[in-house]
Amino acid sequence: MKRTADLKTEILAVGTELLTPYFQDTNSLFLIERLNDLGIGVSFKTIVTDNREDLVGCFRTAVKRSRLIIAMGGLGPTEDDRTREAAAEVLGRKLVFNKTVSRSVHERFRRRGVPMSSSNRKQCYVIEGAEVLMNPNGTAPGLWIASGSKRLVLLPGPPHELKPMFEKEVWPRLRAVRSGFTLRRVLKITGIGESMMENRIRAVYANLPPEVNITTLASPGELQIRLAVSGAGDPASSEAVLGTVEKLLLKKLGDNVYSRTGETMEETVGSLLRSRGRTLACAESCTGGLLSHRLTNVPGSSRYFLEGIVSYSNESKNRLLGVSMALIKKHGAVSGPVAEAMALGAMRRSGSDYGLSISGIAGPDGGTATKPVGLVFTGLAWRNGAAVEKNLFFGRRDLVKFQSSQKALDMLRRRLLEKET
Amino acid sequence: MKRTADLKTEILAVGTELLTPYFQDTNSLFLIERLNDLGIGVSFKTIVTDNREDLVGCFRTAVKRSRLIIAMGGLGPTEDDRTREAAAEVLGRKLVFNKTVSRSVHERFRRRGVPMSSSNRKQCYVIEGAEVLMNPNGTAPGLWIASGSKRLVLLPGPPHELKPMFEKEVWPRLRAVRSGFTLRRVLKITGIGESMMENRIRAVYANLPPEVNITTLASPGELQIRLAVSGAGDPASSEAVLGTVEKLLLKKLGDNVYSRTGETMEETVGSLLRSRGRTLACAESCTGGLLSHRLTNVPGSSRYFLEGIVSYSNESKNRLLGVSMALIKKHGAVSGPVAEAMALGAMRRSGSDYGLSISGIAGPDGGTATKPVGLVFTGLAWRNGAAVEKNLFFGRRDLVKFQSSQKALDMLRRRLLEKET
Repeated sequence: MKRTADLKTEILAVGTELLTPYFQDTNSLFLIERLNDLGIGVSFKTIVTDNREDLVGCFRTAVKRSRLIIAMGGLGPTEDDRTREAAAEVLGRKLVFNKTVSRSVHERFRRRGVPMSSSNRKQCYVIEGAEVLMNPNGTAPGLWIASGSKRLVLLPGPPHELKPMFEKEVWPRLRAVRSGFTLRRVLKITGIGESMMENRIRAVYANLPPEVNITTLASPGELQIRLAVSGAGDPASSEAVLGTVEKLLLKKLGDNVYSRTGETMEETVGSLLRSRGRTLACAESCTGGLLSHRLTNVPGSSRYFLEGIVSYSNESKNRLLGVSMALIKKHGAVSGPVAEAMALGAMRRSGSDYGLSISGIAGPDGGTATKPVGLVFTGLAWRNGAAVEKNLFFGRRDLVKFQSSQKALDMLRRRLLEKET
Repeated sequence: MKRTADLKTEILAVGTELLTPYFQDTNSLFLIERLNDLGIGVSFKTIVTDNREDLVGCFRTAVKRSRLIIAMGGLGPTEDDRTREAAAEVLGRKLVFNKTVSRSVHERFRRRGVPMSSSNRKQCYVIEGAEVLMNPNGTAPGLWIASGSKRLVLLPGPPHELKPMFEKEVWPRLRAVRSGFTLRRVLKITGIGESMMENRIRAVYANLPPEVNITTLASPGELQIRLAVSGAGDPASSEAVLGTVEKLLLKKLGDNVYSRTGETMEETVGSLLRSRGRTLACAESCTGGLLSHRLTNVPGSSRYFLEGIVSYSNESKNRLLGVSMALIKKHGAVSGPVAEAMALGAMRRSGSDYGLSISGIAGPDGGTATKPVGLVFTGLAWRNGAAVEKNLFFGRRDLVKFQSSQKALDMLRRRLLEKET
């Protein structure tokens, strides 16, 4: 039987919760992307419960068919954390007490000022011959195990522990033996729908160089076009091919593309505000703080973000933003004039350069025949002017909230690009 | 070797796109839920590319270890749709032309007014001895195959084809042989860490009735204990067993349990505010709007949530909340006295019953030796008093933000429970 003797790679996700209707493994998206970056494709992903016998069986199957196995989860201190034991059994190795791990776990508890639980002692045992991957974000250390030509990597399940450990400990070890690459480009697009985008880029799609892999992703408020080229050796020619395709797409999509290097909308807006030395204040109604939350997710945002007002009640629109009760009475809280007054009020009262506002109906209740659920006004104020946009967004409450915040941020982005270059 | 000879069940998802960084299989959440409803637990989920050899290998493994195998994807008309062939090979059966399927595929093309592609002819071949599961939403028929005591089900990959086919064709066939059920409970816990929780519930864990399946999940700011009992026949006794275990856990965990029926922290707090007829205003610094965003994610929150202030700058703490500049100068913006003044200011200015505040250092920058990243003060004000808590949270900026908002909401929850019952 013919076998591609090259590195077959397998991801093994361990956890009974991953086989319930409530949880999805999301780590593997990250792992696959990073492995692809080295030119390593993933052939199998197996998800298994904490059941010891099943877990041992999966490790046996994985060791038989794959040369690189990345297992995650089941390294914690509880009774159903059995990944270490199962891997040791399949490899025919012992678990041995590790002083370095023990010191690190003790130190972690000492810093927190709480006594170390006896169950954490279990985490100080590692598979004989394994290299320990230290975990600065949790108590469970990872393990890197060489067994003949095979490599078995055990990582903790929580994403905030797994990801830094992969970057710091696993990536350099893989890099040392693999010189492949995958080059990628991500275009993030807003302000047009999926079919309109498809129409615009049809010609590019039809003449795509065969080595370029293209994937489009659509979600409410945002589209993505992902380009990838994999290869080995010198990436220069692949880089050129990718650049040409990207340029063609940019020409077709224009300023609907808000990001070319992976950054989020709030990072894009933040960079623009920062580079132009401008400040911002927000006033939100139906998004309830999401707009400010997104803006302040960016480290360093305190340099340009002054304040946000979540004016849920009419009274607070009046008192905090100076929107007149007469205006609210005349047009309704969800209206263009009120959105504009909110943006102006946020700007004037805070002394910021820009004011950004949102007023709408997020649903599921509160809609009427003339003002349905999903009707949202976004407003932008600047030194000597203001603008308002009216939109109707579809979907659940959280999707309406997200699309509204996306639209408001996009208004500011376009203004900063057009008027402040 | 001891084997639980009962129905081990496996899901096999086929498709190269499922092993890229961009796509997650979501069908399996639906399948697992519906299988659980019949008391069928899923032991394995395997995801494999279109590679024929790998696919055959996965079917071989599945047939060896599982009695019910539900495979999805790879039934289409293209070259890389190989699920039928792979399953036939492993079962040692032939593919035979099926007239009913052929008629149905032809009819489908006729209705659409397009000629049938020759590649669709491939879809008219079915595994010998299989029952055909008709597909009203696509061209790929599903297959139900009995092989000794094993059952192999092949379903199309697109969710809008898979789900109706499962409900109409697969569910009744499974129902006929399984009359089981799964009962569930979810306890959501905050205010203690994973190891402390483990210590508290150790005795319950040790004496757990064998039929109760328990899973604990830990993420920053929140723990979950999930209980499940599967059985057959009358669920009354299982209901009683589950109730007893839940009661024991509640006794050990006390008011650290904030939810018993799946609701989020913001839903719990919202219900308490609503049932007691109380209103709330928020003042946030480092969480940047997340607290208000979470509270307003709950439909109907406008009944109790009046307003939120994101006072990122010192000037805005002073102007919008009445926090004196002298107080900020004396203690610093990140301090107990300032957090208390923020909560009082939010309450007094809005006229709400409660004021909730957060001031801290979300990081990654801005920390000092005496005020490190993760230092967060949460404040709660009520009619005739106020309280402040000091915490040190670990993790990235988004995790510090989340844990801070969770702690603030929990302060309010406890107050509402203790003082307003």
